[in-house]
Amino acid sequence: MNIQAVDRYIEEKLNESIEELSRLCAQPSVAAQNLGIDACADLVAERLKERGFEVQILPTEGSPVVFGERKGKMDSTLIVYDHYDVQPPEPLDLWKSPPFEPTLRDGRLYARGVADNKGNFIERLHAIDAILEAEGELPCNVKFVVEGEEEIGSVHLEPFVKAHQELLSGDVCVWEIGGVDHENTPIQMVGMRGICYVELHARTANQDIHSGTGGSIFPNAAWWLVWALSSLKDKDENILLPSFYEDVVPPTEREKELLAQGPEMMAFYKEKYDLDGFLKGINYELELAIEGVYEPTCTICGLTAGYQGEGSKTVLPAEARAKVDFRLVPNQMPEKVLSQLRAHLDAHGFEDIKIVNLGGNPPAKTDPDHPAVQMAVEAAKDVYEKPTRVIPMVGGSGPNFIFQRYLGVPIISSGAGDSETRAHAPNESISLDLYVKGAKHFARLLKLMGEYN
Amino acid sequence: MNIQAVDRYIEEKLNESIEELSRLCAQPSVAAQNLGIDACADLVAERLKERGFEVQILPTEGSPVVFGERKGKMDSTLIVYDHYDVQPPEPLDLWKSPPFEPTLRDGRLYARGVADNKGNFIERLHAIDAILEAEGELPCNVKFVVEGEEEIGSVHLEPFVKAHQELLSGDVCVWEIGGVDHENTPIQMVGMRGICYVELHARTANQDIHSGTGGSIFPNAAWWLVWALSSLKDKDENILLPSFYEDVVPPTEREKELLAQGPEMMAFYKEKYDLDGFLKGINYELELAIEGVYEPTCTICGLTAGYQGEGSKTVLPAEARAKVDFRLVPNQMPEKVLSQLRAHLDAHGFEDIKIVNLGGNPPAKTDPDHPAVQMAVEAAKDVYEKPTRVIPMVGGSGPNFIFQRYLGVPIISSGAGDSETRAHAPNESISLDLYVKGAKHFARLLKLMGEYN
Repeated sequence: MNIQAVDRYIEEKLNESIEELSRLCAQPSVAAQNLGIDACADLVAERLKERGFEVQILPTEGSPVVFGERKGKMDSTLIVYDHYDVQPPEPLDLWKSPPFEPTLRDGRLYARGVADNKGNFIERLHAIDAILEAEGELPCNVKFVVEGEEEIGSVHLEPFVKAHQELLSGDVCVWEIGGVDHENTPIQMVGMRGICYVELHARTANQDIHSGTGGSIFPNAAWWLVWALSSLKDKDENILLPSFYEDVVPPTEREKELLAQGPEMMAFYKEKYDLDGFLKGINYELELAIEGVYEPTCTICGLTAGYQGEGSKTVLPAEARAKVDFRLVPNQMPEKVLSQLRAHLDAHGFEDIKIVNLGGNPPAKTDPDHPAVQMAVEAAKDVYEKPTRVIPMVGGSGPNFIFQRYLGVPIISSGAGDSETRAHAPNESISLDLYVKGAKHFARLLKLMGEYN
Repeated sequence: MNIQAVDRYIEEKLNESIEELSRLCAQPSVAAQNLGIDACADLVAERLKERGFEVQILPTEGSPVVFGERKGKMDSTLIVYDHYDVQPPEPLDLWKSPPFEPTLRDGRLYARGVADNKGNFIERLHAIDAILEAEGELPCNVKFVVEGEEEIGSVHLEPFVKAHQELLSGDVCVWEIGGVDHENTPIQMVGMRGICYVELHARTANQDIHSGTGGSIFPNAAWWLVWALSSLKDKDENILLPSFYEDVVPPTEREKELLAQGPEMMAFYKEKYDLDGFLKGINYELELAIEGVYEPTCTICGLTAGYQGEGSKTVLPAEARAKVDFRLVPNQMPEKVLSQLRAHLDAHGFEDIKIVNLGGNPPAKTDPDHPAVQMAVEAAKDVYEKPTRVIPMVGGSGPNFIFQRYLGVPIISSGAGDSETRAHAPNESISLDLYVKGAKHFARLLKLMGEYN
């Protein structure tokens, strides 16, 4: 492959690619709010067709999956997992430019979903364009699997992948995310925690009631929920569900060794988020690294009850809701956590609190010394200034378990991410410099996949 | 006084009075949201001027107080306490007709504030119109004190009343609310609990963070608030602030005797609010009556944190807030509760949780056998079908303490309220039938005040 020609194309046609990305980001596609999903799937399909992919928009019980396949010179197949859905943009007032009006500022493109994960999708197409321009063909087969429910726990992906094992089959899967850490060291993330995301719903009366006499004699949904929540986890961060920790597998020595090679994060986090300290009295770097990814969590992501406006309103709420995510580590399974949660609430007198399952994924990891991981590290060598660091497990979650289980593939990472992306938060963005690097890395991955067996 | 002529006027001119009331209710005046306050004060002042009252709009540090005075035949003075502010109308989607578009349905007028307390204000003016039409003059002096911050705890009323003791002086004070209970028995409410309304504010970082790694290592404002709240009150409704109960004075034997004369409420409440049972295992009527008003409370009125929209968002909230009202019984004082709350939070490690004081009032009561109360009972005799029941204490709160402390007056009640008013909730309303009865009661009160000394 004429990699110099490929790199030149990636650099020279950057503006065109960013324009294409901006058009995609201008299309809202919030799975949690069922907003713009089909329109965005169509846009994604068109992007792939333009590059000569054979594209199918395949239905699921929820958002459709866009599948695109293009044959290459060799028989090996790279599966590319991306998603076209994005997190809700709220709170809107914290965005400097509107979330669905992509805006360039200081070498970064700002928009909801630009980092997670529309940017990586278009960046990969940009690399493909460069190779097709330079070589006329791809070095290996490429299959894109672009789903529309990643941000809501990929709720319908498992039956989809299970039902399409042959169509989706391949040798290596490149994950939606990738990039560099806060010291600009390229990273390979090869494991992800699982997730079990629920809404807890308390209802104590058929209507809100004046808090006068009512406060003394009627049950209060907000209190009920607060007591239920406080029974789930104590102030020392111990999660109190029955047998919650019994399936937890601690990190291997090799995984710890890899984590120990990571950069110092404590001072960085403290400054970035204006923190006084960390949970559980964490006070040295390796402890932070291990606790951050090899311990399961129970996080309140949202609370809502009663009056939330300015000033006071004396009301006894009849209804209260909490969004809670459990991050799971090998070998915890979301279905089991759901039943532990139900059992716990029942045992503590909260039988009347409803659990709405908003989706989940089991945890999964690829052997950090797998040849596919070595290939991804190799592909980064002349793109980034520093050698790649392999991260055996990250704190986030995704449906990697599904790909590993049904397709039996190792999972590697690639992308334009850095520590400033603010994925899931207001002012999400990517760096154009890292976008170029990400495209170059992806081009090299395709090249090496031509030799993979 | 030609009471037949007065009653006839009240009945015949009902529509005109309801139209006047509707105009007042169409003016939003939400103190908590600083919405329409000055415009509503002007409307109230005009209403009084039209009846020949000398009116002053007196400033405070917050909403102005409308003061109106008209001399009567005799020297005795009735002080009328009303307020022109209303509760926030939210949640708007539960209103059958818009909260600020007064609507008649099935003999009731629906609007935010129509029961609490704009209806009683206009109803009293309607009685005054009837007397002026029949007699040409009022039997006693009447002073209206119409404030604009009752629904946010009358935060500036105490210095106002203290500074205007002479201007506001009188013999008896008729309170903003009054009417009948759910069995249509007229009631005299002569005591009110106090209130201390706060917002608790937790902040753990300078921005919301992705809940992936963050959930394991960074503090979470929502959890922090949940733990702080759950430390305030246990599941058995014991409020855990230090020395919180030390100033509580139990009801007198006479007060219990009066409470025991009340109607049975348990079945009524259960059906109305679709309840399984009551707090604290309350299981007989007198217990319900006493617990409902002679025990202090700690009520969560609102909770807000993180993502509250549809579906899931994996975010670690940097900020969380709770609105909490404490209802106080004699002789608890709001300032003391505030310092108990601060001390409690500090002692439990929640020094970083901010307390925003949103206002309060101490509890206060008038002797249920006071001559003014007997007068109010007498005034109801030929208006209602049943004899009046004197209620020594109600669950709600108001600034009655201020009037008793600085003006030294007994406090009685009068009004159009019933058990269907839904004060503070969507679809607030009053009955036109009870509006007429309330006006007749008020006219008789004025008549008897002419003989009061």
